[in-house]
Amino acid sequence: MKIKRYAVIGTGAVGGYYGALLQRYGHEVHFLLNRDYDQVKKTGLRIDSVRGDFTLPTVHAHCTIATIPPCDVVLVTLKTTQNYLLGAMLPPVLKKESVVVIMQNGLGVEETVAAIPSVNCVAGALCFICSNRQGPGHIRHLDYGQVILGEHSRKQTGAGMTASLKSIATDFEAAGISVHCAENLAEARWKKLVWNIPFNGLSVVLNATTADLMRNKHSRKLVVRLMNEVMEGAAACGQSIDENFLTEMITATETMAPYRTSMKIDYDERRPMELEAIYGFPLQRVQSFGKQLPAIRMLYEALQFLNERNIKEI
Amino acid sequence: MKIKRYAVIGTGAVGGYYGALLQRYGHEVHFLLNRDYDQVKKTGLRIDSVRGDFTLPTVHAHCTIATIPPCDVVLVTLKTTQNYLLGAMLPPVLKKESVVVIMQNGLGVEETVAAIPSVNCVAGALCFICSNRQGPGHIRHLDYGQVILGEHSRKQTGAGMTASLKSIATDFEAAGISVHCAENLAEARWKKLVWNIPFNGLSVVLNATTADLMRNKHSRKLVVRLMNEVMEGAAACGQSIDENFLTEMITATETMAPYRTSMKIDYDERRPMELEAIYGFPLQRVQSFGKQLPAIRMLYEALQFLNERNIKEI
Repeated sequence: MKIKRYAVIGTGAVGGYYGALLQRYGHEVHFLLNRDYDQVKKTGLRIDSVRGDFTLPTVHAHCTIATIPPCDVVLVTLKTTQNYLLGAMLPPVLKKESVVVIMQNGLGVEETVAAIPSVNCVAGALCFICSNRQGPGHIRHLDYGQVILGEHSRKQTGAGMTASLKSIATDFEAAGISVHCAENLAEARWKKLVWNIPFNGLSVVLNATTADLMRNKHSRKLVVRLMNEVMEGAAACGQSIDENFLTEMITATETMAPYRTSMKIDYDERRPMELEAIYGFPLQRVQSFGKQLPAIRMLYEALQFLNERNIKEI
Repeated sequence: MKIKRYAVIGTGAVGGYYGALLQRYGHEVHFLLNRDYDQVKKTGLRIDSVRGDFTLPTVHAHCTIATIPPCDVVLVTLKTTQNYLLGAMLPPVLKKESVVVIMQNGLGVEETVAAIPSVNCVAGALCFICSNRQGPGHIRHLDYGQVILGEHSRKQTGAGMTASLKSIATDFEAAGISVHCAENLAEARWKKLVWNIPFNGLSVVLNATTADLMRNKHSRKLVVRLMNEVMEGAAACGQSIDENFLTEMITATETMAPYRTSMKIDYDERRPMELEAIYGFPLQRVQSFGKQLPAIRMLYEALQFLNERNIKEI
């Protein structure tokens, strides 16, 4: 194995966990931190995981992008609400052959990042993980952890597997992260939206867990209605998803432990919700193909109202 | 003026207020009460009103329909969620020429009541009033109070003005209640739904006053989207409403004091919300004309979820 230099842009529940695994395996990992910087600089990272607890007493902690050297792979694990920072943050940490991996939910981020000067290769990763930040530098990994990795393609038809992506997948697997490589990133992102669009939004608007939403017949109808619209939206953008997928998602959610979605956690903790990546951009993309998604539009408007009030009241 | 015998079926903020005005004017009014019966039997009704406070130390208070004599006019002022009781309650208080006046929101109640044996004449009244129950037998009238009165027509095309309706309108006016007689009750009911459907439901789902909903651009879009669907629904049922009406409703709401809707009050006090009359029946009616109203359907499903949880948790 060739040791690579990784950057983790945003060391939260997702970036901190995956970055810590990569460092533990032997890679050089640079962590960009914000509020947790002082603590992590002093005591490193602590991971409590269902796969086994571990600590990294010393990590490369940074409170500014300026001290991070150019890296082979840059993992973007900010909340999407912080993505406006990427135009300034990414160029200093990139080499010609660097790969930027967008490890976020929603649509549209790869397009935006690919347009930043000096960005040459962009990939996307969908993280299926339950983890949260327990305190400064302390992450709790509760369940799952699989990553779907795919190269960004301007044509949205799938870039296939490239050598650089294969190499990152190999690193992840070796570090203990289960990876599936997607031929078509756009399709994989739409598939994740089939779950995220109903459950993230409804959990906030109806103040409910996934189990609450599945148990009641009315909210279940809302979930199915929204899932169907996501499938229609995907199809309008050229990404046909098999109808069985909806049924699979419903069944999978029914067998999950009651789950508070990441958007609900953001809302409860009065952080901005990731509305543009999960609702705004997909709606805009679908509209550019001449299609409307009225149920998703409504949910989006309700969430925007709640988001603005929630943040204003702080 | 001929003195009439009135019954008020459901002595709450609406029935108590209008009934008290009619008794003060000189009519014989029989009040059906539930939890306030003991108090009202002892001390009568107290009305604190922007038009002047008054008390009626003695009223005909009833805790059962069995003690109410047959009346000329029966005002139905129950919450619509109690309407399943009407089949048993109405016949004993009716004479051949009695008029039953449905003083409730929503659609469909007149049809149901007209089908009850021994009901010969049904009218509907839309009450534009801000009033609430302060305590047992104590009603506070905050603002407005106008009534739109119309005779029920099986054909939904408008029954015009009948002599019995004119006579009730005259009683109301004389008692100090501003009355407008509608040629077409169905159209008047749909018009009221243009306001009730967005504001009642959104105030609950988004935990907001009318002013909150008007102030934010996203919730305002939701209001307009829902209002437009009500207009489409009305048109599908043969009740075309002029488009200016929507603008008038928006302007009127903007100039209102911040208002907690009756549905929000029911929700906050953990009473069942009037979902069937305001959402379920209109949706069903519109569907019978082959039309779907997806935004209203979604709001209805969200409200059903909240309603069931709200009541179950008591």
